[in-house]
Amino acid sequence: MAPSPTQRILILGGGFAGMFAARELSRSLGKGAEIELINEVNFFTFQPLLPEVAAGSISVRDAVAPLRRLLPGVRVRQAQIHDIDTARKVVIIFQGLQRRYTEVPYDHLVLALGQVSDLSRVPGLAAHALTMKTLSDALTLRNHVIDKLEHADITALPEVKKELLTFTVIGGGFSGVETAGEMLELIHKSLVFYPNIDKREINVQVVEFADRLLGELPASLAAYATKQLQKRGARVLLNTGITEATGTAMVTTSGEVIGTRTIVATIGNAPSPLIRGLGLPNDRGRLRVDRRLRIEGHENIWSLGDAAQIPLVENARDRADFAPPTAQFAVREARTLARNLKAALHGLELAPFVYRSKGALASLGGHRGVAEVYGLRFAGLPAWLLWRAYYLGFLPGFATKVRVGMQWLLDSMVGRSTVQTGIRQGPGTRYLRYRAGDRVFEEGNRADGFYAVLEGAFELRYRNDDGTEALHHIAPGGHFGDRVLFGNGLRTGTVRALEDSLVLMIGAEDFRRLHEAMPPVREYFERRRAGPAQEESAA
Amino acid sequence: MAPSPTQRILILGGGFAGMFAARELSRSLGKGAEIELINEVNFFTFQPLLPEVAAGSISVRDAVAPLRRLLPGVRVRQAQIHDIDTARKVVIIFQGLQRRYTEVPYDHLVLALGQVSDLSRVPGLAAHALTMKTLSDALTLRNHVIDKLEHADITALPEVKKELLTFTVIGGGFSGVETAGEMLELIHKSLVFYPNIDKREINVQVVEFADRLLGELPASLAAYATKQLQKRGARVLLNTGITEATGTAMVTTSGEVIGTRTIVATIGNAPSPLIRGLGLPNDRGRLRVDRRLRIEGHENIWSLGDAAQIPLVENARDRADFAPPTAQFAVREARTLARNLKAALHGLELAPFVYRSKGALASLGGHRGVAEVYGLRFAGLPAWLLWRAYYLGFLPGFATKVRVGMQWLLDSMVGRSTVQTGIRQGPGTRYLRYRAGDRVFEEGNRADGFYAVLEGAFELRYRNDDGTEALHHIAPGGHFGDRVLFGNGLRTGTVRALEDSLVLMIGAEDFRRLHEAMPPVREYFERRRAGPAQEESAA
Repeated sequence: MAPSPTQRILILGGGFAGMFAARELSRSLGKGAEIELINEVNFFTFQPLLPEVAAGSISVRDAVAPLRRLLPGVRVRQAQIHDIDTARKVVIIFQGLQRRYTEVPYDHLVLALGQVSDLSRVPGLAAHALTMKTLSDALTLRNHVIDKLEHADITALPEVKKELLTFTVIGGGFSGVETAGEMLELIHKSLVFYPNIDKREINVQVVEFADRLLGELPASLAAYATKQLQKRGARVLLNTGITEATGTAMVTTSGEVIGTRTIVATIGNAPSPLIRGLGLPNDRGRLRVDRRLRIEGHENIWSLGDAAQIPLVENARDRADFAPPTAQFAVREARTLARNLKAALHGLELAPFVYRSKGALASLGGHRGVAEVYGLRFAGLPAWLLWRAYYLGFLPGFATKVRVGMQWLLDSMVGRSTVQTGIRQGPGTRYLRYRAGDRVFEEGNRADGFYAVLEGAFELRYRNDDGTEALHHIAPGGHFGDRVLFGNGLRTGTVRALEDSLVLMIGAEDFRRLHEAMPPVREYFERRRAGPAQEESAA
Repeated sequence: MAPSPTQRILILGGGFAGMFAARELSRSLGKGAEIELINEVNFFTFQPLLPEVAAGSISVRDAVAPLRRLLPGVRVRQAQIHDIDTARKVVIIFQGLQRRYTEVPYDHLVLALGQVSDLSRVPGLAAHALTMKTLSDALTLRNHVIDKLEHADITALPEVKKELLTFTVIGGGFSGVETAGEMLELIHKSLVFYPNIDKREINVQVVEFADRLLGELPASLAAYATKQLQKRGARVLLNTGITEATGTAMVTTSGEVIGTRTIVATIGNAPSPLIRGLGLPNDRGRLRVDRRLRIEGHENIWSLGDAAQIPLVENARDRADFAPPTAQFAVREARTLARNLKAALHGLELAPFVYRSKGALASLGGHRGVAEVYGLRFAGLPAWLLWRAYYLGFLPGFATKVRVGMQWLLDSMVGRSTVQTGIRQGPGTRYLRYRAGDRVFEEGNRADGFYAVLEGAFELRYRNDDGTEALHHIAPGGHFGDRVLFGNGLRTGTVRALEDSLVLMIGAEDFRRLHEAMPPVREYFERRRAGPAQEESAA
């Protein structure tokens, strides 16, 4: 029996799992069903290439491809997913300028929402670490690194320079190792433009909690990767975790305080909050599906990719019994899912997901890589070329293949650009963490923000009109930096953290606007100015 | 006599004028002087190509080149310029995370700060119009246009769709015409991916106050350009200005209200505020220099490019007697400046700036252009090819030439990407303008921000617990949308503007953080909730 043509298949998520699932489904079902994919951005991100984007060895748009181009015959909707009502079989989204409430009905739902990074477990990490999950992340890291080089080239303070030139990657998995390798590339290729920076001043460090890098690869290859990174000047810290992060330093589990103004966290993968809220069976947020990729107890809800906990054997128990969260597996899962969903529409029998990894590859940058394919091990240039060939073949869309191929060629020919190519982030508000003793700003700095204290305590020193020095203690609920509201925009006092502390920083321009637009805020500060305390004019 | 080797030449600004001035100076002076250039970003932006970046026909980094690469032998400093003390011969800058106050001394100062865009004269324009001056501008426009196509493809509201598909360019000069042409390209090449948008629904319009486009070119070529744009579906509104702009519409001098959610303003060039504050002789902010490019009455301060008012003849009077603000002239001015500054160092005589325009070119997109070179006129494909050849030759840096050439080739081969490649702007605060009757949001929308009223008046309608409808009037000093603080994040009321109004919108996340971190704000809203008024729970 043929499926009713009105069958609606709705796929949530446009990563490897969702995009390839949509692709396989529209190929196998053709006009037999209505297929729609909803994603927050209108493009597919080729995550394995993000470190290269950050390093500038391929250009932004070549690590991504428009979902609409990759998915002819599939309806693509760019929207924010708010909730799923499995009883009424609708997904609730918001779209457009006005964030209009919209319901999208489905007959079959495919959950491919992947994972998000959750850095909340380490104090200060969420506030100060960069991540490597999205295109924006890659661009932000690139701009951040170049910004540090620019500053290191002109600063007169050796202590600051050391912090600026220390680049930290948390996590020694594929993403961490490739990020470190590409950062080395970017920095070394850029140094020629920064006459005041000596190569030996650069410190790129990889911090890994396990006793070796690349747990997914054989120890011999991991050892090779470690040696390669070290040979190129990187520092590899094993058996080491991070316990705290600030804008200028990190603290390791061994209690070491390392000055660094760049922290890239490739750890802390967590299920998307949406999934958690659904009340579907899950293990620590990963959706529990059977080997046919169907959610336990739901005939019409499927899941695959990093969002799903996929057993590779019956009554799977330990980690090795489940599919690893890799692109390689996601693509195979997509095929099984398409086959099974079609079978379900036709009332046929479903087949379990069966796949054995063909191997793993990692690029170390600098034309070096490590690979294990069909049990064979490669290291160095061959592995690196293999890596490039593999991913070039993997890249969706001919245009993108051509572009990336050319970019790689060009890169080896004409060197790379140290231009900062992102849109600078708007100011808004930011949480900032400080360790006891850290200086927030000092007299004479430009007043670039207002600070509200959430945790800890700060000390504000300033000179009274009569020249005597005054000291002011600021506790949670208090604030400093209202100097942004008046004067010549220069700090008149110096602020240090007395304890480990957390503040909310509001950009100067935003704070001025708020002060102008919100009477309660304005009146509050007028009362303060009128009052006896005079520290309001300081800082 | 040789100049003392310690002579410090400081150039402010890294556009065509500043970059080429630094280049010519380091060539002619070599080690004879210390040359430093200070700019807010570390790259040179090739402005004529920005419309192509926005259209995606060349990639971001190919319209820019690192200043350090372009200027070997010149010290490049990325910093924000705060002030200039001509008496003490120092420039005051802020650099680094802490915005440290730094003084940079000079013997000779070259002011090449160009112009900024000032849209403050038209209500709502600064808040709602995009500009075309920087790389960020180009990326923002690109993302904005694609965002509108995405939304138009899925919206069910014809009125909204019409606004979404109306793209407005204010100003019919080179920048305006090229932006309109490239937008047409981007949109038309993208439509294949948006099945629900018909080409005839697209409305790109150019609004020009004069009675024709491209005032810098002969009327015949302007007429050709107009016809070309019209043939490709653009609307050209001549003798028309704009009197008001909102997020969904614009009002013309003829009183016509045109629904549009995209406004690109290529008008409103104004001198940089820094220049205004210097107290140097200027005409409406443009620095008055003599024909030798020296500021009147200052032996050691020079200026060129858009920032300067450069006479082409003795006692120049009308517009034609002064150098036009074009890249072509800036590059020539740079040569004269270098020659004269060197002469000044050697106590030799200075020569006046003499240059005659060799012509002008404009690209119309779609492989069409207009050009007048050495009095000869070209239109269509030849002019367009001429334009590309001219700028390709103009592009600084071999790597960039190669890349751009290839991009152009690729573009004609494999089509372009509709990926949104910018970093999304952080929330922060935004000014928003509404016209009488405009709806800000309605019941059921997602609560995405808090609104503080600055001008005008709004009406909030919501249902009381007993089901009766309540009406609340909000005047300047008042606010609405505190719903972002609680509930399921959906609006419970509908807000419209009763008059032409201005609000400050604070992103939901930022507002929640403020509410948490600033006791005065929190207490204020607690008082409100406690008080008799109950509208705080609405909207």
